[in-house]
Amino acid sequence: MSSPDALDGRLAFLNAGLDELGCQALLVFAPSAADPDLAVFTGSVHLGESLLVAPRGERPRLAYLTPMERDEAAATGLLLITPEELDVLRWTQEAPEPVDFTAAVTARALELAGLSPGRVALAGHGRVGVLHAVLSRLARSGWSWVPANDLLTGLRKGKVAGELAAIRAAAAGTVEAFRTVARLLAAAGLRAGEGDELWLEGERLTVARLRAEVARTLAGFGLEQPRGNIIAPGEEGGVPHSTGTQERVLRAGESLVVDLFPRGTLFADCTRTFCVGTPPEPLARAHAAVLAALRAAHAGATAGATSTIRGWDLQEAVCHSLGDAGYPTPISHPGTTRGYVHNLGHGVGFELHEQPIFKKVAGREGVLAHGDVFTLEPGLYDPEAGYGVRLEDLVHLTPGGLENLTPLPYDLDPRAWG
Amino acid sequence: MSSPDALDGRLAFLNAGLDELGCQALLVFAPSAADPDLAVFTGSVHLGESLLVAPRGERPRLAYLTPMERDEAAATGLLLITPEELDVLRWTQEAPEPVDFTAAVTARALELAGLSPGRVALAGHGRVGVLHAVLSRLARSGWSWVPANDLLTGLRKGKVAGELAAIRAAAAGTVEAFRTVARLLAAAGLRAGEGDELWLEGERLTVARLRAEVARTLAGFGLEQPRGNIIAPGEEGGVPHSTGTQERVLRAGESLVVDLFPRGTLFADCTRTFCVGTPPEPLARAHAAVLAALRAAHAGATAGATSTIRGWDLQEAVCHSLGDAGYPTPISHPGTTRGYVHNLGHGVGFELHEQPIFKKVAGREGVLAHGDVFTLEPGLYDPEAGYGVRLEDLVHLTPGGLENLTPLPYDLDPRAWG
Repeated sequence: MSSPDALDGRLAFLNAGLDELGCQALLVFAPSAADPDLAVFTGSVHLGESLLVAPRGERPRLAYLTPMERDEAAATGLLLITPEELDVLRWTQEAPEPVDFTAAVTARALELAGLSPGRVALAGHGRVGVLHAVLSRLARSGWSWVPANDLLTGLRKGKVAGELAAIRAAAAGTVEAFRTVARLLAAAGLRAGEGDELWLEGERLTVARLRAEVARTLAGFGLEQPRGNIIAPGEEGGVPHSTGTQERVLRAGESLVVDLFPRGTLFADCTRTFCVGTPPEPLARAHAAVLAALRAAHAGATAGATSTIRGWDLQEAVCHSLGDAGYPTPISHPGTTRGYVHNLGHGVGFELHEQPIFKKVAGREGVLAHGDVFTLEPGLYDPEAGYGVRLEDLVHLTPGGLENLTPLPYDLDPRAWG
Repeated sequence: MSSPDALDGRLAFLNAGLDELGCQALLVFAPSAADPDLAVFTGSVHLGESLLVAPRGERPRLAYLTPMERDEAAATGLLLITPEELDVLRWTQEAPEPVDFTAAVTARALELAGLSPGRVALAGHGRVGVLHAVLSRLARSGWSWVPANDLLTGLRKGKVAGELAAIRAAAAGTVEAFRTVARLLAAAGLRAGEGDELWLEGERLTVARLRAEVARTLAGFGLEQPRGNIIAPGEEGGVPHSTGTQERVLRAGESLVVDLFPRGTLFADCTRTFCVGTPPEPLARAHAAVLAALRAAHAGATAGATSTIRGWDLQEAVCHSLGDAGYPTPISHPGTTRGYVHNLGHGVGFELHEQPIFKKVAGREGVLAHGDVFTLEPGLYDPEAGYGVRLEDLVHLTPGGLENLTPLPYDLDPRAWG
């Protein structure tokens, strides 16, 4: 939330939300500044356990608990409530138990923000046992709590400049990791008498090898994979949930679904599907259908630059086009595990899955708006035939059109990646 | 929790804790199986949002929400409550809002575990706004909630075989990352006319370069750094909180504190301090004092194999020996930012900081017991003189003595690392 404009826009959204909930303020609990409900206010800083209090119509105040974090807290540009003002040292001695300590600090932060007991919107994340006890105790002093995690999810739907830069940086490393995978697959080959198993540098090429190279490439860009990744060959890729078995040797002529979703300060998300050698006809046909669906989804989302498009509209269109091509879809065959079996996309940023959402039952959280960053990821699966195909781009909707943050080839053949 | 013996021991601990709290059961909320309060029961599996219900004296039951997670859930060896039994599809349609949905699923899980409204111990982590509303609603049906995050922290204090293997794997990668750092530093040199700046491969050697090589090495071991790392030269290392600035060029004759705390399925934690070239006398003296303190702490902790030793006992001993050597300590100078300014250690495992704790006000959570994995990390800092020295080993206390999981040289000089 570096620029004042961005802060102003989000505060207007927050205040409207507080009005709707009938709340005088927002209270956010966070185990660290990596908490998505807090990070949307603080930007990327290093803070441990913290609180944010935002009285309706006023600037938010950040309460931090350790004097050593003074500089990090100041870097947020927020109004601060210091450990000294919170009397942290006193509570550490007089109320060392977690529930007592947190209750004392929270009550003090609310008071220092100028609030009196009343309705407060509640967000953030934390220890369930401790925080429920804290909030129940404060409720006995007249505070009442209204759940507001969803309000915060809405607040971070549209991304601001610094956040876009962070997502672009994560996407750039992701793109390079895919090029690493393509290079390794292009260099792999068969061995006489070893059937269709792929070999590279004198060893059978496994999922584990690709995973290690992906991790090394991402690490060079300062990216982590807190949610892991999917590198799923053949029958494993036929089930979208399967992440791929480490020791599995890759084979010529089978599909390989690679889905990477690393995080720097924010997340990126991208999927490509490979096949070394000649793909069987069903796989080639599925790949062509998925690519056509992805291109149609790009075009549909681009229309969101100038008119109101909902994620669900695009999902319906993909279902119809893949249905016309003869594949089962969630609309034609609810609960199907063959054909197109999932949703078309999801927002990406502070969390791997955030708004916009692509569900039928969605209000404004389902509208694709300027500043939104989201995936488009049609796929086709056949657990019995033993293949999966998914192609996923990460895109940013702007007033001028759609920015593709993962501009990579779509080819099955890694040698075509050049 | 792979072995039945380990499960039995922990269930006995859990049941004693539930008795103490007067609770009929434990309820754990978890956003995923990476939640430390859940992972201690499930081991390393891939699960999204889940619940655990452990009626006192009975085997714990894991409630998972997605049929696709059937195999992962089964791999935990726990009794299962399936999405079908929870009626997840029904609530998705009839109660799609997060509070309604979670309240319905939670009530059903408690009922399926054979419980009737009454006192339940509460742990895990989650969205504060949503869960407080859920728990308050269920309280109106007669459920009452007792905070129990601390009970779960105690439950995972002593590590079982599979957990030790996971920590050893993380420690092995950490050790290799330190050897990478030592090799780079040993290969660095000065350039005529460039003062004391270090050069490597035609470029000034920066914190960023070391950080990238560390990340690549750890990635090769399947390790992530969800909490980052500390690579802090000179004046930056003089403040224990400083993580080190990326662009900072390393210099001969200054200290370099490297503190790595990566995670595979569990965490490891280790610190070494380097100096390329001749260290100034105060740095050399501080290093000798810290190394002596670490060796004494090793000996003190080893005594815990056969008698009762508290973390605080070791902290006191270190304060006295460093105090005798003329350095301020938290005992002689509370709140000091010069000399020995922190605590001697902390447990490591599911979280980077867990039990045992080394604080004066500690009961059984402060006793070093067989199966505990913890750090020993004396340090000396002088922000004005611009140096920091910290040496940190990760150790495992066994009936036979102390296992050092990070057996690395302690030398300041990277060329002595060989």
